[in-house]
Amino acid sequence: MSNLSIPYDKLLSTFEEILRRFNFTTEKSRICAELFAGASLDGVASHGANRFPLFLEMIRDGYIVPDAEPVQTFKAGSFERWDGKLGPGNVNAWYSMKRAIELAHQHGIGCIALGNTNHWMRGGSYGWQAADAGMIGICFTNTKPNMPAWGSDEPKLGNNPLVIAVPRKDGPIVLDMAMSQFSYGKMETYQREKKQLPYDAGFDKEGNLTRDPSTIIENELALPAGLWKGAGLSLVLDLIASTLSDGKSTYELGKEVVEFGLSQFFIVLNPDKLGVTKAAEQHINRVIEDLKSSSSFNSASVNYPGENTLEKRNHHLKHGVPVTREVWEKILSYQKDP
Amino acid sequence: MSNLSIPYDKLLSTFEEILRRFNFTTEKSRICAELFAGASLDGVASHGANRFPLFLEMIRDGYIVPDAEPVQTFKAGSFERWDGKLGPGNVNAWYSMKRAIELAHQHGIGCIALGNTNHWMRGGSYGWQAADAGMIGICFTNTKPNMPAWGSDEPKLGNNPLVIAVPRKDGPIVLDMAMSQFSYGKMETYQREKKQLPYDAGFDKEGNLTRDPSTIIENELALPAGLWKGAGLSLVLDLIASTLSDGKSTYELGKEVVEFGLSQFFIVLNPDKLGVTKAAEQHINRVIEDLKSSSSFNSASVNYPGENTLEKRNHHLKHGVPVTREVWEKILSYQKDP
Repeated sequence: MSNLSIPYDKLLSTFEEILRRFNFTTEKSRICAELFAGASLDGVASHGANRFPLFLEMIRDGYIVPDAEPVQTFKAGSFERWDGKLGPGNVNAWYSMKRAIELAHQHGIGCIALGNTNHWMRGGSYGWQAADAGMIGICFTNTKPNMPAWGSDEPKLGNNPLVIAVPRKDGPIVLDMAMSQFSYGKMETYQREKKQLPYDAGFDKEGNLTRDPSTIIENELALPAGLWKGAGLSLVLDLIASTLSDGKSTYELGKEVVEFGLSQFFIVLNPDKLGVTKAAEQHINRVIEDLKSSSSFNSASVNYPGENTLEKRNHHLKHGVPVTREVWEKILSYQKDP
Repeated sequence: MSNLSIPYDKLLSTFEEILRRFNFTTEKSRICAELFAGASLDGVASHGANRFPLFLEMIRDGYIVPDAEPVQTFKAGSFERWDGKLGPGNVNAWYSMKRAIELAHQHGIGCIALGNTNHWMRGGSYGWQAADAGMIGICFTNTKPNMPAWGSDEPKLGNNPLVIAVPRKDGPIVLDMAMSQFSYGKMETYQREKKQLPYDAGFDKEGNLTRDPSTIIENELALPAGLWKGAGLSLVLDLIASTLSDGKSTYELGKEVVEFGLSQFFIVLNPDKLGVTKAAEQHINRVIEDLKSSSSFNSASVNYPGENTLEKRNHHLKHGVPVTREVWEKILSYQKDP
């Protein structure tokens, strides 16, 4: 597959135009297009351009309702519960983080529990959104079952991505981690290239750790990151998101063939409103400088989460966003009347 | 080392009496004794009886101030910042969780940032504290550096334990995880028994993963749980706790020989106040039942975090708390005048 370099503005306007054809309002088509194009811009094509055609198909199939408006169903101070009405997952998540930021401007803390929503695509987007507003942001989503509980040979847990962002003028720290050591997308890439994964990635049928992508994909037994630790973390994040949003748990999501109707949670902490002194910026910089001064095994530089993202973003803004020819042609096919 | 079985009440009253000799108030000696005895009762002797002598030595050496009172330094709605004044870490953490629960009773959400405190001993205690009050509790602490950043060959990150608890009438879900795959205490046990760890646990000098406890302990290169994921999570938890508490980061803790003056963060969510319906209990039960119905590789039962704790607690209440003869004699030696 040859790679094209699409100028960011071209990618954005193409997505926007197609979304307008799929019944998105002007505002929503803009937000949704920015989230898809932004994911590819930041080097996360799996949840950017590559995923866009599947997203459109889920709209056609009725799992994602393009013109649904999220509805507030409960409010108490800095906490609100919203029903996502099965709208586009990335737009719903963006609105939720925006609302959590507004609450944190007012109260110092903002929490949104969002139920009945859809895949938020690249979770890191909402970490960046909080950090760009000068806030600490924590958010997580559940997913359909795709990992086993510790000791089990069947998938019962979601890989439930967790995002934590800390603002910083010279580049925020944005952690975006799924609870499986490797995503199925990554494992499929290794499978296509007939390669073993670089670290243990799942289980074989006897319960042994393995790096073989085909074995893991066939068994649907992705390894929880940190073994029993990632399995436990996945469970409690699912329980918190689904309980507080009055939404579906991973268990309930697993009853459907297609993954839709997810539960998510967003917490924002506003350092300014919480009386954190101006010295906080220097405090964070000192920690990052110390980390980056680490000596390393292979003389490679030691990076903090999110650091490479900024480099990629700037590079792609200048030289164009890489999109495979196959994906780009697929996307352009949606410009024609359905 | 032979094991004794000490009745829980005896363990508690022994700790309490000794703490009174170490200048604890009646109330604080009770709280502190319950936290130490409770850790052993729940099967976490490493942060219970086994740790008690070292705790007393840190008081003698002036790192822990037994009669220090934590002081509130900032308040905004459901958020408060407290200065732990280098008081006993477990008592300070217990007061902080108690205060967070009070705030959550009032506002639905309660957050405490606690700086200038000490090792909280068993983090799970504060998860149980929240769950016993019917609340969702999230808390984390930083530690001195004891893990490398991803790719690095020197410890710059703490193993920063994270605790997340979800209340449930038939037994809460309480996750208590440090960010290293194995604790140094666990690795030392394997070293003494001349055994390899069951999973990769750290790095050798060339940066290869290893299960050999001696190699890892010598290099101080414990493996972050989930490889780069646990390393990233450790960093952001440290930044949040130290920034919001106006306290020390892992980097600053590493400048001292002895670990003291830690930063911690506590978040409590009150389902009742946040309008979560009565059905939430059944919702959580269904998820747990589904998880426990998992088939497993070796026909062993699949457990949720905290499940074994309740079993151990009930067993030890009935049959006595296991304490090694060596540790018990050491503890009793503090009953004599210093």
